[in-house]
Amino acid sequence: MIKIGLDMMGGDFAPVEAVKGVAAFFAEHNKDIQLVLIGDEEKIKEQLTLHQLPAQGYTIVHASQVIEMHEHPTKALKEKQQSSIAIGFKLLASGETDAFISAGNTGAMMVGALFSIGAIEGILRPTIGAYMPRENGTIGLLLDVGLNADCKPENLNQFAILGSLYATHILKIDNPRVGLVNLGEEEGKGNLLAQATYPVLKENNLIQFVGNIEGRDILMDKADIMVCDGFTGNVVLKLAESIFDITQRRNIKDEHFDRFNFEAQGGVPVLGVAKPVIIGHGISHATAFKNMIVIASRMIEADLISKIRESFAVQD
Amino acid sequence: MIKIGLDMMGGDFAPVEAVKGVAAFFAEHNKDIQLVLIGDEEKIKEQLTLHQLPAQGYTIVHASQVIEMHEHPTKALKEKQQSSIAIGFKLLASGETDAFISAGNTGAMMVGALFSIGAIEGILRPTIGAYMPRENGTIGLLLDVGLNADCKPENLNQFAILGSLYATHILKIDNPRVGLVNLGEEEGKGNLLAQATYPVLKENNLIQFVGNIEGRDILMDKADIMVCDGFTGNVVLKLAESIFDITQRRNIKDEHFDRFNFEAQGGVPVLGVAKPVIIGHGISHATAFKNMIVIASRMIEADLISKIRESFAVQD
Repeated sequence: MIKIGLDMMGGDFAPVEAVKGVAAFFAEHNKDIQLVLIGDEEKIKEQLTLHQLPAQGYTIVHASQVIEMHEHPTKALKEKQQSSIAIGFKLLASGETDAFISAGNTGAMMVGALFSIGAIEGILRPTIGAYMPRENGTIGLLLDVGLNADCKPENLNQFAILGSLYATHILKIDNPRVGLVNLGEEEGKGNLLAQATYPVLKENNLIQFVGNIEGRDILMDKADIMVCDGFTGNVVLKLAESIFDITQRRNIKDEHFDRFNFEAQGGVPVLGVAKPVIIGHGISHATAFKNMIVIASRMIEADLISKIRESFAVQD
Repeated sequence: MIKIGLDMMGGDFAPVEAVKGVAAFFAEHNKDIQLVLIGDEEKIKEQLTLHQLPAQGYTIVHASQVIEMHEHPTKALKEKQQSSIAIGFKLLASGETDAFISAGNTGAMMVGALFSIGAIEGILRPTIGAYMPRENGTIGLLLDVGLNADCKPENLNQFAILGSLYATHILKIDNPRVGLVNLGEEEGKGNLLAQATYPVLKENNLIQFVGNIEGRDILMDKADIMVCDGFTGNVVLKLAESIFDITQRRNIKDEHFDRFNFEAQGGVPVLGVAKPVIIGHGISHATAFKNMIVIASRMIEADLISKIRESFAVQD
């Protein structure tokens, strides 16, 4: 049976929204999945009484500590061994769970993923992405958005492969197109990194490279996977998030801009680590938790990790 | 008398909108300025008959060629010596005009500014910026947005000084705040460039450094001058431009998002070159041309170039 670890203490509305998300998941999905709810047992149980959950669908693992949103990731993980994030990674590393999800301290999640689980062999730097909404209702995946501030061409090339595998097997996009975020369309444009990355992507037959994409294309349907260094990607993501905030403040009701609500999309996987790890937005509500559980279950069912292993083994 | 060169053949609606802009300028401003209208004399005269212009307010300099929007900048400038942009820079270099404005081929304008006019002594790399609209009605200046794809800390430091002088003397912002575009707020965050730039900005007493600003702050009133490498800035600018396009397509009427119409803002100066050069958006309409003439006249009246020279002389 698939076992998915879920940090019940992560996010601004813990554990209330996490429990609601778990309830919503069971209401909609009849999968043979056991959720391992990690956090303050008393608080979780108190919330569970408000919902009807299948008794065999979950277990609770008590965690007496919480890593707060603004704690230093490495320090907090080391000092708070009884935190829900630290325990979540222990369960994942030992094989007691098959995936781990948290909307808690993003830095601690990344550090945990990198150091408790580690990268798949052949992967230089795991990556984290963000979904970019397009007007036609689809999404694109921008990689990297902050895990790797400085990148080399080979890092971007690996992000392109990882993103393509995720898009193919989890997002169910056939032959996902890979675009290189750049300041111009023509080959030869760009900073040193983009100029050096273009030929590497062009020669990579594991991906479908469609060339450079500019800032104006990021929210358009030009490429399904958009690769850039984590500095640029982070600035783009936070700018896009601020657009949603502006539309909310200005009371603009629009179906498309509503999709800029990044927390509603659920979380994003840390791609390239040896087990499925999904990080949610701090302001995640029930729907986001439900969606993260769905994505985690798809990653396990599709055995994405093995597919990534195979791709990188072939590549060497 | 101040003489401002204006490329009448630049932009998608040349020379119709340029002439309209000139007419609007004279209708609103009673300045002792002579505009030097550069372009196809016949076409310009044809348009001039539709407006009432003060006869002493302009002269026409015929240019038999036009550099089209998608021509290779260096090649076109070299081969089309009789183009409005090439002639515009000749007049500026020889002192026959005091400023030059064009909404034509951006690359050719940059190349012309760098090679016909050149950098002010002490300036390593001139820069071009873009205005970022804020909800409170003010604007911020993002530098660089594409002239310098790869930067060193000293480049960003110089952009900060140039932007501060422009904001103080032309935009009339007292003690403009400088922010470093980064992926986190705390000192020490960032890619190698941002990490190395932070202390340089902090120690620079020619500017008022307010620390790191994130992507979410770019459209907020956190800093008046926002410095980054031209790669990141270009992606940000084009993403912001696309937001305006999306609001237009979706028929969203909002006073704030209307200000994302970058062409309405007029042009931006190339800061750090030895004479005032202003580059407009390709889709510039009359208001943009009028605004560019106003900005050019302010740059001359405030003698911004001398103020920049003095700052960089002091710094050495």
